[in-house]
Amino acid sequence: MLSNLFSKLDNYYDEMVSIRRFLHQHPELSFKEVNTANYIKTYYEKMGIEVRGNVGGNGVVAKIYGSKPGKTVALRADFDALPIQDEKDVPYKSLVPGVMHACGHDGHTATLLVLAKSLHEMRDELEGTYVMIHQHAEEYAPGGAISMIEDGCLNGVDVIFGTHLWASESTGTIQYRVGPIMAAADRFDITIQGRGGHGAQPHKTKDAIVTASQAVVNLQQIVSRKVNPIDSAVVSVGSFVADNAFNVIADKAKIGGTVRTFSEDIRANIEKEIERIIKGTCYTADCTYQYLYERGYPAVVNHRNETEYLIECAKNIGDVTAVEETEPHMGGEDFAYYLQHVKGTFFFTGAKPENMIENYPHHHPKFDIDEKAMLVAAKTLGSAALQFHAYAKMRKKEKLLSNNK
Amino acid sequence: MLSNLFSKLDNYYDEMVSIRRFLHQHPELSFKEVNTANYIKTYYEKMGIEVRGNVGGNGVVAKIYGSKPGKTVALRADFDALPIQDEKDVPYKSLVPGVMHACGHDGHTATLLVLAKSLHEMRDELEGTYVMIHQHAEEYAPGGAISMIEDGCLNGVDVIFGTHLWASESTGTIQYRVGPIMAAADRFDITIQGRGGHGAQPHKTKDAIVTASQAVVNLQQIVSRKVNPIDSAVVSVGSFVADNAFNVIADKAKIGGTVRTFSEDIRANIEKEIERIIKGTCYTADCTYQYLYERGYPAVVNHRNETEYLIECAKNIGDVTAVEETEPHMGGEDFAYYLQHVKGTFFFTGAKPENMIENYPHHHPKFDIDEKAMLVAAKTLGSAALQFHAYAKMRKKEKLLSNNK
Amino acid sequence: MLSNLFSKLDNYYDEMVSIRRFLHQHPELSFKEVNTANYIKTYYEKMGIEVRGNVGGNGVVAKIYGSKPGKTVALRADFDALPIQDEKDVPYKSLVPGVMHACGHDGHTATLLVLAKSLHEMRDELEGTYVMIHQHAEEYAPGGAISMIEDGCLNGVDVIFGTHLWASESTGTIQYRVGPIMAAADRFDITIQGRGGHGAQPHKTKDAIVTASQAVVNLQQIVSRKVNPIDSAVVSVGSFVADNAFNVIADKAKIGGTVRTFSEDIRANIEKEIERIIKGTCYTADCTYQYLYERGYPAVVNHRNETEYLIECAKNIGDVTAVEETEPHMGGEDFAYYLQHVKGTFFFTGAKPENMIENYPHHHPKFDIDEKAMLVAAKTLGSAALQFHAYAKMRKKEKLLSNNK
Amino acid sequence: MLSNLFSKLDNYYDEMVSIRRFLHQHPELSFKEVNTANYIKTYYEKMGIEVRGNVGGNGVVAKIYGSKPGKTVALRADFDALPIQDEKDVPYKSLVPGVMHACGHDGHTATLLVLAKSLHEMRDELEGTYVMIHQHAEEYAPGGAISMIEDGCLNGVDVIFGTHLWASESTGTIQYRVGPIMAAADRFDITIQGRGGHGAQPHKTKDAIVTASQAVVNLQQIVSRKVNPIDSAVVSVGSFVADNAFNVIADKAKIGGTVRTFSEDIRANIEKEIERIIKGTCYTADCTYQYLYERGYPAVVNHRNETEYLIECAKNIGDVTAVEETEPHMGGEDFAYYLQHVKGTFFFTGAKPENMIENYPHHHPKFDIDEKAMLVAAKTLGSAALQFHAYAKMRKKEKLLSNNK
Repeated sequence: MLSNLFSKLDNYYDEMVSIRRFLHQHPELSFKEVNTANYIKTYYEKMGIEVRGNVGGNGVVAKIYGSKPGKTVALRADFDALPIQDEKDVPYKSLVPGVMHACGHDGHTATLLVLAKSLHEMRDELEGTYVMIHQHAEEYAPGGAISMIEDGCLNGVDVIFGTHLWASESTGTIQYRVGPIMAAADRFDITIQGRGGHGAQPHKTKDAIVTASQAVVNLQQIVSRKVNPIDSAVVSVGSFVADNAFNVIADKAKIGGTVRTFSEDIRANIEKEIERIIKGTCYTADCTYQYLYERGYPAVVNHRNETEYLIECAKNIGDVTAVEETEPHMGGEDFAYYLQHVKGTFFFTGAKPENMIENYPHHHPKFDIDEKAMLVAAKTLGSAALQFHAYAKMRKKEKLLSNNK
Repeated sequence: MLSNLFSKLDNYYDEMVSIRRFLHQHPELSFKEVNTANYIKTYYEKMGIEVRGNVGGNGVVAKIYGSKPGKTVALRADFDALPIQDEKDVPYKSLVPGVMHACGHDGHTATLLVLAKSLHEMRDELEGTYVMIHQHAEEYAPGGAISMIEDGCLNGVDVIFGTHLWASESTGTIQYRVGPIMAAADRFDITIQGRGGHGAQPHKTKDAIVTASQAVVNLQQIVSRKVNPIDSAVVSVGSFVADNAFNVIADKAKIGGTVRTFSEDIRANIEKEIERIIKGTCYTADCTYQYLYERGYPAVVNHRNETEYLIECAKNIGDVTAVEETEPHMGGEDFAYYLQHVKGTFFFTGAKPENMIENYPHHHPKFDIDEKAMLVAAKTLGSAALQFHAYAKMRKKEKLLSNNK
Repeated sequence: MLSNLFSKLDNYYDEMVSIRRFLHQHPELSFKEVNTANYIKTYYEKMGIEVRGNVGGNGVVAKIYGSKPGKTVALRADFDALPIQDEKDVPYKSLVPGVMHACGHDGHTATLLVLAKSLHEMRDELEGTYVMIHQHAEEYAPGGAISMIEDGCLNGVDVIFGTHLWASESTGTIQYRVGPIMAAADRFDITIQGRGGHGAQPHKTKDAIVTASQAVVNLQQIVSRKVNPIDSAVVSVGSFVADNAFNVIADKAKIGGTVRTFSEDIRANIEKEIERIIKGTCYTADCTYQYLYERGYPAVVNHRNETEYLIECAKNIGDVTAVEETEPHMGGEDFAYYLQHVKGTFFFTGAKPENMIENYPHHHPKFDIDEKAMLVAAKTLGSAALQFHAYAKMRKKEKLLSNNK
Repeated sequence: MLSNLFSKLDNYYDEMVSIRRFLHQHPELSFKEVNTANYIKTYYEKMGIEVRGNVGGNGVVAKIYGSKPGKTVALRADFDALPIQDEKDVPYKSLVPGVMHACGHDGHTATLLVLAKSLHEMRDELEGTYVMIHQHAEEYAPGGAISMIEDGCLNGVDVIFGTHLWASESTGTIQYRVGPIMAAADRFDITIQGRGGHGAQPHKTKDAIVTASQAVVNLQQIVSRKVNPIDSAVVSVGSFVADNAFNVIADKAKIGGTVRTFSEDIRANIEKEIERIIKGTCYTADCTYQYLYERGYPAVVNHRNETEYLIECAKNIGDVTAVEETEPHMGGEDFAYYLQHVKGTFFFTGAKPENMIENYPHHHPKFDIDEKAMLVAAKTLGSAALQFHAYAKMRKKEKLLSNNK
């Protein structure tokens, strides 16, 4: 059955490439992906697959029913693009000025569509149900995952798998991690309000720049003193603006920054500690403050059993040349929300061509992927989906045995 | 002779007011005071007084020769306006949008013109020479004083007197100070160059915001630790700009500020100490920097004998109700340059009307002066000018005596 | 064979306890453990086991030869005590004032002695050689491991295992970790030399306290900005002394602290970054400095295969109720040096009795262990030692197979 | 009359020197000056001058009554020594180990005694009353002045004069100042209470050293931002003690320092601002604090008329070669209290010998004075005392005249 799926995928590789290139030429920004959603929906409709559009916005969900009863496995691919001007010199370059698939979501979509087509053709042999979650708006908070979940995309789902094509790792590599694999990425904005005045008369003022500078310095102590050294966290101030004449004393100063964490406890603690530091620092200079803390996506926390299962699946795929543990990434992903509702795992699929001379990072105007990686992704996701029913039965038996002990 | 001068000034008070009001309605910005300069020059020409225009720019210098030999006394008035919109509701409100005499230079000019007219009428009784220095561009560095001096306005001058109408003191008050009366006002601009990067990867960056914040905090130690507590100095950072996205680490940060001092030693030392602090702070974070220190006007340092002489003159004028020592002011004045070349003193002439309900500071859109103060200024300057010859003789005699001891 | 060993250990448990209690009553400080070393040596001599004393100081090494050829497995136990007054109320309380086995090394020694006795009795069935490393001076840098290694204690050794009884985990628990399990623990001492003077004349001084304070604040940026957030590191200043009269300005200030890391790269980088920060900070205030960085024990970095092997051994021991991965500990251990020379692993053996009401941490005056934990430790070490030959053969075969592919 | 006094003083100069040298050999610490007080009292008793001992402690007050009615003039000299080992190589070196007249109070006493003797001899010609205040305990807060005033030493006194021999100025120089001439000198002690712990576990602690360091840095902003740049103030931290092992995190840190000011407003404000900064800084790290602010002597604020009178007196003394305005000194003096009760002035009498090779500052183990300066001090104080009655009459007349205007 698995070899059947793999040979189908090998056969449909050209279609995968052409879908990806079409999407690459027609990128749409987060929350505005109307045409892309239609494209996806139409693809399913043409094959007679059950599909629902406008799921929690522009989301699309398709379902393939096996002929035998079984578990329900969800696979997710996102499809929004970024506000970046495509600077690559390739035939499939973006046709939309200032918009570009610079993160590989076009590849995710092509992978999932062709995998769905293959599974659909095998539906008579299949157990259980396969849910294809095509998610809009991953790049822009609050993201599309929350609203799609609220709109029922996970109803009845037993497990979910997702992957990200990853241009810094060689094609053939699968990177996994038990526990946190991507960070929670939050934002804070602070306005420190002093009392402005003449630069020559500091005693009549409350100097917002000195106070904000002190605050920036003090914020360093969160990571150095307040977080367990074993845990990971980042607090970075990215902007500091008090744009006055040189010879005045600033009335106010604004600082903005980002917090990255892998645990909700540390996240909540840092949110509090930032305020503690701002409040105390403002008190020293009799200034006041406004503090806004906006939570972005939470950390993507992979479940142990499902990740170990995925590792086993990946190791048995010929196209997969390496299965490695990865360090957690500090970037954010709203796949996090799915894993708060159902078991599952998120992994990276290497997408760097072997003989690539120069390698551009994600979100770069010259970013590109090795298209062969889509085949690796499709086989890994497909393998995980197909074998899950057998795995689930085995686990159930083990549990019974251990309960009988 | 003095009473003759005073009654002339009393008689010409109305003219003084109308000149001032005309100038108030027709203000011109620093270095662009062409019409004002013409107005002044024409005033002298009409009376047949020797006058030279375009002195070091738009400056005008007139000379009145007494019938007897004697010292050469210079009196100075500045005549430029400010880029401020006049918001007063008076008949003589500025007619030029966005330009306003918000510092009283119109009054200075009216005072000096009418004083000159009076002295001119008394020329047969006078000893020595009277030089009327009408200076352009006091408000904007490098100011008009330097170029007028280079163009010879102080040639042959033995002593110089100048005053500023001062709206926060009551009319009738003369404020003097031996030594520094107004500060040197300098500017500094610092760019701290780090290495930008992703907010989640501080270890790959050199954080310019943290480094610049540290620098701002460290700069506080110049005044607290490096300046003799007996001396006065200010180091204020007025602007801090690192205007990036919240989730990056800043590549560079710019800070700008002002330094105020009363002594050249302290000034030079602070210029060095700022660089020392920036250099050391940048070193801690492996950042680099650019440091620009622009000297503004030096401190106005009054000479002791000439100031004490001025005090005596002021005490004997009926319109003067108080002669007070003032604390030094932290603001700058390019009268400083004249005092680096010849002896003299600069003083404040109170210009706050008795029954003024609300009092607006200099450079405020509703700033105004009590016009009566012009009469006080004219009498004080005139008194100092007229009696200087007698004073100089007395001093000479004293010196001879003390040399003979 | 294993069950034979385990039943011997069970039978000798009482002896283990009495050895441990004797040592507990007669603790000796690091590098002064002459009697303890004699005690150990005599124990072996009485049984006719080959033993060498004064190995690299007070170290003792015994060897048990199996009747068949095989690998050489080393087991290590440390035996020094701490300068702490025993405050427990137990019959086996320390008899030496101010000296105490407050870290469980008495238990380590009892465990290893009785395990050795058991193995010695089984020597006819055994393959290979068993090296019992009784190490002095673990508590006090530079420790005893380096000199014992230099004195040949690892000669011919193929693998080494060691454990620490751990009072915060329940008896029955074995905690392992692949890679770093204990940190490198270093020390730094900094003297900042300013120029002292009268508290009222800061401008004539270089204020060592302000400069050192600035340095302490700046040091926070090493962990917050210079270390990859994924990695762990600690930089703590533990002492700050500038003990002068209140009304002077300090001539010098001394700060001392500790650095904990798990990687040599980060360790070396932090050593450099501390100096960078001190140097730059001193420059801002024209102070000078002395900087001493003393490396303590390096990180204990467990080898993957040997750790995974140990896990398997532990899982098959009845007394072991839990085999868990532990977070790395920030404390130091000179077992690190053995692992730089031969393969092996270091693990924690839980030693908290089930019904303990209050639990005292290591180095506490009331610290105690659950003596049952010695049996768990002996069985785990013994199991790892006995089965290593079979494991090694299996690994060899696997390797041959994979080479033949 | 004045020339009579001056020739008496010239004649008694040798006695003045021998008194001073005797006292120099027999110094006594503040509040323990029993023998010195006896010496002084006996001196007066032998001459039959009215004298009272134990005034407010060890103080001694003598009174000389002129034959004619008049004002009551007080003159003050202090007589305590310092806990310093005399390291001079002179015949009159201190005989008391560890105690030394290192501030010239021996000279003050000798000056006043001999001046009193001379005035006593002239009592038939004198108007008014002369009060000789010999004050104990000037060097050690709370000082002797308060208790002597409470014990009536200023009762009936119209004016007070006092001087300090000053080793950094040439003999012959008198230094005066209207307004503040010596600073208020206060002390503060701060304990910052965090929560200690292991150096490797900062997240379980509240780091008292980092918090105190931050506080020291923040305290710099009082002078740089909170005090009018025209005014003078010093805030110096002189001690910082957190004396722990290097590998712990400090439970508490203690800092102590001094504040110097010339105005009660600024003094009160700084006392508040220090607490504001400590409170805010502690808040940022969740630490607590104890804050003690001990007021020392207030600023010595000279009265204008009495100072100008003293200047006139000094100018007319042959031995006085220079009468100069001095910058205010940052050191403290409890003469301040007398000037809070009666009019008067405090001045410096230069005491540096012309051909001195090396000059040691006050409180130095090799400190010495030019004894000739005692004669200058005696004549200046004597002149101010003798002529005060004439001066007071003249002032009264002037006042009447001005009231009649």
